[in-house]
Amino acid sequence: MTTLLKYLPARTKLIDRALNRYLTKESTKPVTIHKAMRYSIFVGGKRLRPVLCLAAAEACGGNVAQAMAAACAVECIHTYSLIHDDLPCMDDDDFRRGQPTNHKVFGEGVAVLAGDALLTVAFEILAQAKETPRYRMPALIKDLANASGSRWLIGGQVADLEGEGKKLSGDELKFIHRSKTAALLTAAIRLGAMSANATAKQLKDLTLFGQSLGLAFQVIDDILDVTQTSEKLGKSAGKDVAAQKATYPAIFGLEKSRKEAQRLTKQASTALKSFGEKGAMLRTLADYLLARDY
Amino acid sequence: MTTLLKYLPARTKLIDRALNRYLTKESTKPVTIHKAMRYSIFVGGKRLRPVLCLAAAEACGGNVAQAMAAACAVECIHTYSLIHDDLPCMDDDDFRRGQPTNHKVFGEGVAVLAGDALLTVAFEILAQAKETPRYRMPALIKDLANASGSRWLIGGQVADLEGEGKKLSGDELKFIHRSKTAALLTAAIRLGAMSANATAKQLKDLTLFGQSLGLAFQVIDDILDVTQTSEKLGKSAGKDVAAQKATYPAIFGLEKSRKEAQRLTKQASTALKSFGEKGAMLRTLADYLLARDY
Repeated sequence: MTTLLKYLPARTKLIDRALNRYLTKESTKPVTIHKAMRYSIFVGGKRLRPVLCLAAAEACGGNVAQAMAAACAVECIHTYSLIHDDLPCMDDDDFRRGQPTNHKVFGEGVAVLAGDALLTVAFEILAQAKETPRYRMPALIKDLANASGSRWLIGGQVADLEGEGKKLSGDELKFIHRSKTAALLTAAIRLGAMSANATAKQLKDLTLFGQSLGLAFQVIDDILDVTQTSEKLGKSAGKDVAAQKATYPAIFGLEKSRKEAQRLTKQASTALKSFGEKGAMLRTLADYLLARDY
Repeated sequence: MTTLLKYLPARTKLIDRALNRYLTKESTKPVTIHKAMRYSIFVGGKRLRPVLCLAAAEACGGNVAQAMAAACAVECIHTYSLIHDDLPCMDDDDFRRGQPTNHKVFGEGVAVLAGDALLTVAFEILAQAKETPRYRMPALIKDLANASGSRWLIGGQVADLEGEGKKLSGDELKFIHRSKTAALLTAAIRLGAMSANATAKQLKDLTLFGQSLGLAFQVIDDILDVTQTSEKLGKSAGKDVAAQKATYPAIFGLEKSRKEAQRLTKQASTALKSFGEKGAMLRTLADYLLARDY
C-alpha cells in the first residue's frame, strides 16, 4: 500500500499534465467549448483508467511515455460518457465528483457538444501514439472505437436507459455492467499493453484481468450507492434506488454482491500470474479498488 | 449534366451499400441503438460529402474502393452532427429530410447516444482505410478529428448557439459557416485525395476547392431557407428567421448573397485548374450545388 500511495499521485500528476498539453487552450475560439471540456476533465476524476493503462504498459516492460497518449484518450472517452450520462434526458444528475455537472454549469446544448468534442479529441490524441512493431495505428483505433461504441460502452447505456423501472434479470444486469464499465476499463489496459508492444500471451492475460476488474469495479459502485452517504460519494447517493434502477445488491442482496466483488477481484489477480513481480502494481491497484469503503 | 445524372445515383448506390456493410446490423443487441443509427443514416441524405470524397480520389487518379472507408466515415460524422443539432436543447427541429428527426422517433436519450455511436463508428470505419505511401493512418485520423472537433464542426455549432438572438457581424457569421459547414466538406475532399495518395500540390488545390465550395454551399442553404417552402425543402423553412438566426441574406441581403455564392463557386472551380480533364466531375458537382433551386 505504501507503494500505491506514492504511485497513484505521481501517475495522476503526469496524466493531468499530459491532458493539459493535449487539450486545446481555454482561450481558443470558441472559448465556451474549451472551457466546458476542461471543466469536466479537471473537475477531479480518480484517473483510474489512465493509471491502469500506464501500469499495464509497465507490466509489459514498457514505460509511461509510450502509453500516455492512449491513457489520455481513454480518459477523454470516459469523461465524455459521464457528461452525456448526466444529461436531463439520461440519468439527470446535478452533481458529479462533488461538483455541479457540466450541463448545470454550461447548459444542456454546450454539455452535449463538450461531450462530442471530448469523444472526438480522444481519437485525435490516440492518433499521436507511437505505433509498435506488433500493433499499428488501425489496431489501436479499432480497439478504442469498439469498446466505446454501440455494442459496448454506448450499448450498455442504452440497455441501462431501457431497463429503468423494469425488473431486470441477473444476466441483463451483467450485460449492462460488462458493456458500460468493463469494456472501456479493459480497453484502457489493452491499449497500455499494445503501446508497450505486448506479446499475444501478455495481451490475452491482461484482457482477462481487465474484464474481471471492470465487473468487480461496477459491483462495488452499486454497493456504494446503497451503503454510502452523498457527501462521502460526491454524487447523489441512493439515486439508483430512487430511479428503480436494477443494481447488484437489489437483485442479489448485499452479502452476495460483496462476495461476487471479492471473487472477481481474485479472478483478476489470478489472470496476472504469468507477470510475476512485474504485475505487482496492477495487483495492488485491483486490491485497492476492492478495498474502497463499502 | 448528363454525366452527373448517371454519376450521382451510381456513386450514391455504392456509398449506401458500403454504409450498410460498415454499420452494425439492426438485430445486434441492444437493438434500439442500431435501429436509431441506421434510421438517420438511411433516411435519405444527399450523400454530398461522400460523393465529393470519392470524386476527389478519382481526380487524383485513385479509384472509388480506395476512398470508400473515408467517404463513409465522413457521412457518419455528418449524420451524427445533424442528430445532435436537431435536439430540443439545440435547434429543436422536428423534421429533417422530410422525416421526423431521430429524437422524435427514438426519444432524446437514445438520439444523443445514436449520435455518439455514429461519431465513434466513423473512426472505426476510417481505421479500415488503406494507408498510402504519403498518408499513414495517424494523418487520416488527425484530419477527420480536427475538422469534426472543438475548433471546427463543433466549434461552429457552439458559436451558432451563442449567436442566437444576437446581431452577428458578417465576420462572425463567416466564422460559423467556415467551421460548421466548410471544414467537414473540405475534410471529405482531403481524405478522398489522401486515400488516393495525392501529391502535396493536388492536396493543396483540393483543400482550397473544398473551402470555397463549403462556404458557397452554406450561403446557398441560407438563401434557400428564406426563399423556399417547407415542402420543397423537407425541413421547416423560415426557421432561421423565426429563431432570429443570423443568415447571409439577413446580413448582406438576398442579391449580394447570391453573388457571393457565385463568386465562391467560381473560386472553387479555379482551384481545380491544374487537374484539367480529371477535375471535370468535381467542377460539375460544384456547378450542380450552385444551381440548386434558389
